[in-house]
Amino acid sequence: MSRANEPGGVLDRPPLKVALLGCGVVGSAVARLLIEQHDDLAARVGAPLELAGIAVRRPNRHPDVPAELLTTDAQALVERADIDLVIEVIGGIEPARTLLLSALKAGKSVVSANKALLAEDGSTLHAAASANGADLYYEASVAGAIPLLRPLRESLAGDRINRVMGIVNGTTNFILSQMTATGAGFSEALAEATALGYAEADPTADVDGYDAAAKAAILAGLAFHTPVTAADVYREGISEVTAADVASAAAMNCTVKLLAICERAGTEAAPTVSVRVHPAMIPNSHPLAGVGDAYNAVFVEAAAAGSLMFYGRGAGGEPTASAVLGDLVAVARNRVSGSRGAGESAYADLPITPIGDVITRYHVALDVADRPGVLAAVAGAFAENGVSIQTVRQEGRGADATLVLVTHAAPDSALAATVESLSGRDFIRRAGSVMRVEGLTGE
Amino acid sequence: MSRANEPGGVLDRPPLKVALLGCGVVGSAVARLLIEQHDDLAARVGAPLELAGIAVRRPNRHPDVPAELLTTDAQALVERADIDLVIEVIGGIEPARTLLLSALKAGKSVVSANKALLAEDGSTLHAAASANGADLYYEASVAGAIPLLRPLRESLAGDRINRVMGIVNGTTNFILSQMTATGAGFSEALAEATALGYAEADPTADVDGYDAAAKAAILAGLAFHTPVTAADVYREGISEVTAADVASAAAMNCTVKLLAICERAGTEAAPTVSVRVHPAMIPNSHPLAGVGDAYNAVFVEAAAAGSLMFYGRGAGGEPTASAVLGDLVAVARNRVSGSRGAGESAYADLPITPIGDVITRYHVALDVADRPGVLAAVAGAFAENGVSIQTVRQEGRGADATLVLVTHAAPDSALAATVESLSGRDFIRRAGSVMRVEGLTGE
Repeated sequence: MSRANEPGGVLDRPPLKVALLGCGVVGSAVARLLIEQHDDLAARVGAPLELAGIAVRRPNRHPDVPAELLTTDAQALVERADIDLVIEVIGGIEPARTLLLSALKAGKSVVSANKALLAEDGSTLHAAASANGADLYYEASVAGAIPLLRPLRESLAGDRINRVMGIVNGTTNFILSQMTATGAGFSEALAEATALGYAEADPTADVDGYDAAAKAAILAGLAFHTPVTAADVYREGISEVTAADVASAAAMNCTVKLLAICERAGTEAAPTVSVRVHPAMIPNSHPLAGVGDAYNAVFVEAAAAGSLMFYGRGAGGEPTASAVLGDLVAVARNRVSGSRGAGESAYADLPITPIGDVITRYHVALDVADRPGVLAAVAGAFAENGVSIQTVRQEGRGADATLVLVTHAAPDSALAATVESLSGRDFIRRAGSVMRVEGLTGE
Repeated sequence: MSRANEPGGVLDRPPLKVALLGCGVVGSAVARLLIEQHDDLAARVGAPLELAGIAVRRPNRHPDVPAELLTTDAQALVERADIDLVIEVIGGIEPARTLLLSALKAGKSVVSANKALLAEDGSTLHAAASANGADLYYEASVAGAIPLLRPLRESLAGDRINRVMGIVNGTTNFILSQMTATGAGFSEALAEATALGYAEADPTADVDGYDAAAKAAILAGLAFHTPVTAADVYREGISEVTAADVASAAAMNCTVKLLAICERAGTEAAPTVSVRVHPAMIPNSHPLAGVGDAYNAVFVEAAAAGSLMFYGRGAGGEPTASAVLGDLVAVARNRVSGSRGAGESAYADLPITPIGDVITRYHVALDVADRPGVLAAVAGAFAENGVSIQTVRQEGRGADATLVLVTHAAPDSALAATVESLSGRDFIRRAGSVMRVEGLTGE
């Protein structure tokens, strides 16, 4: 076999020129690895990859990359005739969208880590890639370094995916893991996450589930061959999760996790797609329950393959850079061989299930008056709305009495109507805490 | 978007014709899915996939597949001019190798689930594929439905893999899980596995580690871009694992698993590859420790991506068929677009580390005379061979006294020399039980 550094080897071939847009934590790791692993990457691609330009806002803040590569004119960089491949790690909708559309329209292949953009307007980018014979890869946009999008769109391409359920936000998983381990409340656990650098100064995108919702949209689109945007995703964050919820979950051998859930729903004849992000209780025996700290994991259920799980680091400069480079090698190989990878697959184009029609199980805690007849009245309200109760137990007595119910599977709208009908009744001391229960076997 | 069943849609395009070699548990699942999911597969590929022939030994034993597709002449089937793609689920070296070489030389792409053949002679097949512009995919050969080979060779292509450590044989994992759960010995657990259908009548390939060794060779080749054959893999099975070993593991919060371990070894300047299959104790806190029953899981450590784990069903007709179909969609898409997927990457061509040079930690149990000076003599023997002891404890007294030692990391040859030097000594009542310890942090 000819070695890379022999005459006529891959290092002597014309390089593919790479533009890097953005040079923060991820971008600087990408730049470093492109330089450090130059020869190895060339061997894998079949031609050298040359970092030919880096677009940044403030060139004087990047002493760690070659100064002659830096430019503040990202638009000019993506339009440079010698650039073959573009890596985008700026994030956000604009100017990233305009830059990537320019690149794709010029036939340059794109690797992006931008979940917000892919979840908002992936179809426009895919159409531009397809029309111009370019590749658009974005493994790094979901679950960092965990190889997930490629298995979904390639390895399982011959199977039927029924559900994708994952922990795709490390910040909220750290917070919930802390609450579980220490009994702390949400605010206290958030403060610790901030102090340790797991949460940003403004934690809204993580804590309120926006980050997870963008990832859920991308996963659902791939899993069900259907265009899904972030706006299609039902979303609840974790700021309302209490220490009591976590304790109540533990009492039934469950753990509270913020889950992104993409399900095939509806009927066989009229399938739909349900996509949602919310805190949920899952049994401790479920493989996702043991995913602690800031780790991510995604559980996939497919008709033939059965249950699969993918686990790893969901964020961080190096892990995300690894995913970017994996994609870069793929698009570069395609460029060398004159081919394209799999484009968007949206042929199924299934409708999105409204949240009211989503069917799952619920854990409901009601602070009630401790007197005869209350359980009968509560049970009656559930029955009137067609929600079947699996278990009920009373915690505390007198002024501390709480009824804890776990339902069988029921539509979200029926559960909401039940809670609504109970909220005005005189034996309810306080509006109930409601949390979905996922991952239990049976209905 | 045009729908598959509209005029001019993908169902009207010329089909790609598929030959299926073998129709056992996996093959019949593949045949069924190809027929059942015909339209969906066509949409994913961009052209219909037509099952055009099935080679079997006894046509009268396959009432579940269309009789007109059956043939006993596999060689004629792979040579048929109209066949585009060949699926091989026969297993074993011959006639599979001859058939696949014929197919590849005729430019037909191949999907194989044949770990034995890939581990023995993968390079010959890859060379034939490359020389004739055909694809050779074999995701199903390792860990069934778990998407693993594609992430290794594509998603992590921009990263440096340092270690792949996995549970890749479901039969032995079931047996060891039973031994752990019930305290049973090996023979008893094997009998139960056989009764439940988890072990074959002749369990040698599983129990003695041959199956895992073939998979380890395939994984090591992909992870380290180096040709590795099954003969390069150091191999120990689980038939010598005792209930005492399992109990001793539990006493140190560990679990016994049969592991396939592929490591980058040697020095930075002169790297080597170590590939081995053997039972080992791993800490219960390690993600692999919780992988029970017949499940498979593979833990990957990469320089940038960090720790990743892939989990799922490692065997069975449907899961394996899912992996075959994922590969089939990929090679069919490549055929439609006139391209090829990534071929063999063996550019690094690293030497294999002899087992004597492999460095790990050991759990050693020695049945000793219970008298003063024995510990000093034992410790002296370890020291003379340069093996450092981390912990030592005595179990039992008098005629039941056992010294249990856990070493720091040491070369296999040094540990072997230590055990050899102790075996002749008068205070050793019985040759020691030695088991490697993996997955601990620190040296």
